Amino acid sequence: MIYLDNAATTVPDEGAVNAAMQYLKADGCFNPSALYRAGFEAHKAIDEARRVLLSFVAPQGGFEWIFTASGSEADNQAIFSSAKRGNFVTTGGEHAAVYNSARELEKRGVEVRFALLNSDGSVNAEALLKLVDDKTSLVSVIHVNNETGAVNDIAALAARVKKSNPNALFHSDGVQAFGKIPFTLTKDIDLYTVSAHKIGGVRGAAALVRRKGAKLLPYIFGGGQENGLRSGTENTFAIKQFEFAAKKKFAVLKEDYLRIQGYNRQMRQGLDTSVFEFLSSENASPYILSVSARGLRGEVLLHMLDDAGLMVGTGSACSSKSRFSRVILACGLDEKRADGVLRLSFASATTQDEVTEAIGILNRTAAALAERTR
Amino acid sequence: MIYLDNAATTVPDEGAVNAAMQYLKADGCFNPSALYRAGFEAHKAIDEARRVLLSFVAPQGGFEWIFTASGSEADNQAIFSSAKRGNFVTTGGEHAAVYNSARELEKRGVEVRFALLNSDGSVNAEALLKLVDDKTSLVSVIHVNNETGAVNDIAALAARVKKSNPNALFHSDGVQAFGKIPFTLTKDIDLYTVSAHKIGGVRGAAALVRRKGAKLLPYIFGGGQENGLRSGTENTFAIKQFEFAAKKKFAVLKEDYLRIQGYNRQMRQGLDTSVFEFLSSENASPYILSVSARGLRGEVLLHMLDDAGLMVGTGSACSSKSRFSRVILACGLDEKRADGVLRLSFASATTQDEVTEAIGILNRTAAALAERTR
Repeated sequence: MIYLDNAATTVPDEGAVNAAMQYLKADGCFNPSALYRAGFEAHKAIDEARRVLLSFVAPQGGFEWIFTASGSEADNQAIFSSAKRGNFVTTGGEHAAVYNSARELEKRGVEVRFALLNSDGSVNAEALLKLVDDKTSLVSVIHVNNETGAVNDIAALAARVKKSNPNALFHSDGVQAFGKIPFTLTKDIDLYTVSAHKIGGVRGAAALVRRKGAKLLPYIFGGGQENGLRSGTENTFAIKQFEFAAKKKFAVLKEDYLRIQGYNRQMRQGLDTSVFEFLSSENASPYILSVSARGLRGEVLLHMLDDAGLMVGTGSACSSKSRFSRVILACGLDEKRADGVLRLSFASATTQDEVTEAIGILNRTAAALAERTR
Repeated sequence: MIYLDNAATTVPDEGAVNAAMQYLKADGCFNPSALYRAGFEAHKAIDEARRVLLSFVAPQGGFEWIFTASGSEADNQAIFSSAKRGNFVTTGGEHAAVYNSARELEKRGVEVRFALLNSDGSVNAEALLKLVDDKTSLVSVIHVNNETGAVNDIAALAARVKKSNPNALFHSDGVQAFGKIPFTLTKDIDLYTVSAHKIGGVRGAAALVRRKGAKLLPYIFGGGQENGLRSGTENTFAIKQFEFAAKKKFAVLKEDYLRIQGYNRQMRQGLDTSVFEFLSSENASPYILSVSARGLRGEVLLHMLDDAGLMVGTGSACSSKSRFSRVILACGLDEKRADGVLRLSFASATTQDEVTEAIGILNRTAAALAERTR
């Protein structure tokens, strides 16, 4: 099987899993809050992971790293901590963890303003800025769109938001950016969400990165772990495996970027454009290539591809219960084209041979489905 | 090293870890929300875990199982979902995840009523019932106290609460009870928290068990996993390992109970009572034995025991930052006795030889410290 749904989850890095296994065993599994030596060692191991991971996005300092159990949890904490009054400005292109938190805020009486998207899924910067006023408590803009791969220039957007309202906090969901596109945090970004399992990490480790001094309230109350900001026994295994996987990924970030850019180009050149239309723009993250198979039903095509040995996504796996992707519709696609959307997404583990074979499978399968439905 | 801090966390069951490893590899790691076959297989694997785990606490049916990432998260969801208006009745003996959520509710203007404890750490039932009135939205009582092991008869308490106010929801944190003491849920219990890592599971898997029909709101919003009640990519590895560890634990629950009851008795008989005073009552959960080393500082003793090869806890590891345990003080101990508290806690993996050796270490070390401080 060829796996091109890496934006949904990646295969955990085996070396990183093996290296972290000690934290599931009798010499490393102790409670990091315990006072005996082995507990303190676990605590130190987590602080080392925190230091290493933080250095990848904020080498200049000035930020803190708060471990959570998932990107969704980090998004929820950022939003429910910050958007309590006034208005919350976000985009039509957010991950469900931000979008559905926004919808919840609306139910609680907070005004939410959704900025329109450009056709590639990036936010329209002018539209976003117009929504920000002196009542805005939080702005949240996804860094790399998880369905189209569109990259929002969050550093520039955050700077403009702060110029318009210095008191507004700026949050970004960076789950599809972290470890994939070159980036470091700037002083205008207050909160940033990352997750392990999109870059070879296991599930159970993610983080909210906070600019020192930016207001943040706990979301899970309890024993006061993570400096009082996130309670619950620390998941040492998942956290250390995250550290080890990220170390490997960041060491080859640029080479991977270029290699996967090559795969992306090869896909664009190899796919039959009489069937496949590219939704992702040329300057999207190379890790995600969203296509629409004109006139075909994406879900049917997905199952046929599965039978033919290729696993791909349809929009975000998280929100796959609704027929049409909210984000794809927000890009301006009509339902007919939205119906045929597939998401092809790559990882470090993807090989050139797999891409070549996947192109053949995609073209043959789409042709067969088109034949059948004609 | 002898490990007697199993109430803080247990060593993950190695067989269960090995059996779950497939879910960290390329044939089982796929996103359970994905539409291709391997995604659906992951989804089925999680539903199987849900069914198995639920059967241990609700074999009669009528309950649902919602996976969360930690017991703290499950407690938070139960409380913040239910205690929005009127008053919230709980006890002075709760885990920090309930206690600090209650304190947060107070800040938000919800009235919180704390019932007094008996000297063994169980809640005073009459005191609790007196606090319940027609404005009570939620009652939360810990099942097995995590510091003293005191068992609250939550089935009886829930029945009395419902008689007093049928609209009040009843929640219990069952983290120290699940897999340790024989118990099944009754119809008056609406919400029940359990966690994997106290019974040989890994961190990252826990659950909130809900009576069907009991009101529950999501706490983490996003992709709508767990039937819309808990968003975030399912942690298949941790969930399956939880299932496998719980299967083993529940299969020997009664034998373990008797064996560990024997260890507990052996401790009570072997410890030098001129130094050690037992805080846990005879009918507490045998898994937890809380003692006070009269006139000695628990933390100093803990470090000396660590040097001598024995790891023990002081109250709850989660809240170990404050000098005196809030729960121990609520049992009526003065600060001098509270200062000397150690928590000895057992697991399936504990052996008789370890207990025998631990008794010797405890007696010798306490005598040495007493000598030194005299």
